[in-house]
Amino acid sequence: MFRVYLDHMATTPLDREVLAAMLPFLENSFGNPSRMYDLGAEAKEAIERARESVARLINASPNEIIFTSSGAEANNLAIRGLAKANQNKGMHVITSEIEHHSTLNAFRSLQKEGYVVTFLPVNSYGEVSVEKLESAITDRTTLVSVMLANYEVGTLQAVKEIAEIAHEKGALVHTDAVAAAGNIPVDVKELGVDALSISAHTMYGPKGVGALYLREGLRIVPLIYSGIQEEGRRGGTENVAGIVGFGKAAELALRHLDKVEKVRWLRDKLIEGVLEVEKVELTGHPEKRLPNHASFIVESVDGEALMMALSFEGIYMGNGTACISQVLRASPILLAMGYPSQRAQCSAIFTLGRETTKRDIEYVLSKFPGVVAKLRKISPLWDG
Amino acid sequence: MFRVYLDHMATTPLDREVLAAMLPFLENSFGNPSRMYDLGAEAKEAIERARESVARLINASPNEIIFTSSGAEANNLAIRGLAKANQNKGMHVITSEIEHHSTLNAFRSLQKEGYVVTFLPVNSYGEVSVEKLESAITDRTTLVSVMLANYEVGTLQAVKEIAEIAHEKGALVHTDAVAAAGNIPVDVKELGVDALSISAHTMYGPKGVGALYLREGLRIVPLIYSGIQEEGRRGGTENVAGIVGFGKAAELALRHLDKVEKVRWLRDKLIEGVLEVEKVELTGHPEKRLPNHASFIVESVDGEALMMALSFEGIYMGNGTACISQVLRASPILLAMGYPSQRAQCSAIFTLGRETTKRDIEYVLSKFPGVVAKLRKISPLWDG
Repeated sequence: MFRVYLDHMATTPLDREVLAAMLPFLENSFGNPSRMYDLGAEAKEAIERARESVARLINASPNEIIFTSSGAEANNLAIRGLAKANQNKGMHVITSEIEHHSTLNAFRSLQKEGYVVTFLPVNSYGEVSVEKLESAITDRTTLVSVMLANYEVGTLQAVKEIAEIAHEKGALVHTDAVAAAGNIPVDVKELGVDALSISAHTMYGPKGVGALYLREGLRIVPLIYSGIQEEGRRGGTENVAGIVGFGKAAELALRHLDKVEKVRWLRDKLIEGVLEVEKVELTGHPEKRLPNHASFIVESVDGEALMMALSFEGIYMGNGTACISQVLRASPILLAMGYPSQRAQCSAIFTLGRETTKRDIEYVLSKFPGVVAKLRKISPLWDG
Repeated sequence: MFRVYLDHMATTPLDREVLAAMLPFLENSFGNPSRMYDLGAEAKEAIERARESVARLINASPNEIIFTSSGAEANNLAIRGLAKANQNKGMHVITSEIEHHSTLNAFRSLQKEGYVVTFLPVNSYGEVSVEKLESAITDRTTLVSVMLANYEVGTLQAVKEIAEIAHEKGALVHTDAVAAAGNIPVDVKELGVDALSISAHTMYGPKGVGALYLREGLRIVPLIYSGIQEEGRRGGTENVAGIVGFGKAAELALRHLDKVEKVRWLRDKLIEGVLEVEKVELTGHPEKRLPNHASFIVESVDGEALMMALSFEGIYMGNGTACISQVLRASPILLAMGYPSQRAQCSAIFTLGRETTKRDIEYVLSKFPGVVAKLRKISPLWDG
């Protein structure tokens, strides 16, 4: 069956070039990078080359890259690690209501340990309120973490402006760029952030590897204590093949950034076509959004049911952040944006990739109206 | 050049069957396991099959297995997570002086947070003193963590006895079985432990994946907060291919356990031959040790220099725990066992694998005396 994968926010296929780069480290070059003999040294060198590629993608220095096992770990390391490292200055930290679950739950864990956490509200486009940040932040605030782009609604946040406000008060700034990196240019210096999370598997790299950018000179409390790996900031024998794959994925992501406009054009075609179906509404900001991101509320159609029904036609899309889709019916992001609970269950998210073609979009548009009509026919909520 | 890899404690080559099992999840089956559509479900099912294999290797139930990114993460999760989860009962925890750096540093991190940590001493064989445990443990002790087998000297600990003593006082017991699993039978029920760490890359699986056995019903505070993965106990999109590889590696480890006697026989040949060189001494317990483990002090020969010199002959061995070998000259394990600093720098560790042959051992024995003699000739400490 013809397969159209439009769930690139959940994960991406592994690029063939990435797999080719990884294979030697899954075959003969298996040494422990902490060993000084040649078999270890070649693994170590490969890690350092990957670190350079990852740094280059976000305009950082290699020594500012800490490899982790996921974007979630990078978020946890940044949030818990920076809050702890700066506890003497204060115990007030700030985030937003529409962050990824790893961020929200890292902040909730701090809350349980006595930190005061401000969760900034968003408007109906999912934009974090900069005014609310200005009134919430104090001299005792140590950390502000607001994502660069939202997974579910694609909305881009004013991270640069947020960083300026935070820095005026002496707070550090972290941003979760997992959804953004690879899809738009990400530049840590331009953004002015102190820490930034990315992940390999959302940019055609392998699952099981992420990275935290941590600005040079900043102290962080580790999550995983061990030996000398990652300069003592993240222990454990390195996932050599995974890190090498991340390096290649970052290199390719940079090279393919010129595909953004093609992807945006296809995405706009998709939005146009989907909105022709009655009672379908775009969620998130119409312009300030990821170029590969199209998200909707399809009235009276359960998001999970739509995801399943479309998959039977070979079309893969999402209905919320992948890692919570099995437990929550109504999207907490959409609820935070002011949608009523019933409508927040009708989420449909299409996220394109650099391999997406015009034919893919045409195929989706040829199937979407019929599948929606069929689901609405059996929906008790539909009175069309 | 003929290559003999005898550094299996640092890492092992990836078994061809393991790579074959992983490849589909690095190629077409790339779905996010948290997605309910077929592409996600097949990844999820593969993870659950791997969980069954890993559980089987250590006689646990699948729901008692938490996948992590390394043995170091499993150790940190067990130690910090169980100490935190039981903080209301008390803040006294116990470990030994010869644990892996991830364990030692996890305990040191607790110490900084106000916990009282007892580091149990060992005898000259590297055996943890059970008597010292008995006198150190109190009703306020919440956790005892002693490794099953030592990386550097191979000594097996009386974990079963330790667990009985700890449980009498109501303390939980964790053991780091990373060095043991795959090399000897490991049975969580027989050992009577509450938590146990293992790693894939030390049993012919991939780097970047480990597991913590956590006895059913025990509460643990996570290191990485996120969504529903690992039942909320360890967040982040799963390293699907890595986990699948771990499952296959565990299955193979169980199947190959009958090779233990062949490995022991080869190891004994190696010890016999190495000890023929003058002023070389076996470290660790002569009998109560891992069957694949041979460790020595080679007087007046720097361990790092020996490792490098042998590698030029195609022989790979170790001189200490891989992840700290680049920073510490004298092994802290050997120091804890009572060796003076100068001798503790002369460590040589050969660890065999199931693929090791008689020819490999003969090759090592043909090269070892000459390399040692050459290094001693230029050593200022040698007065032979």
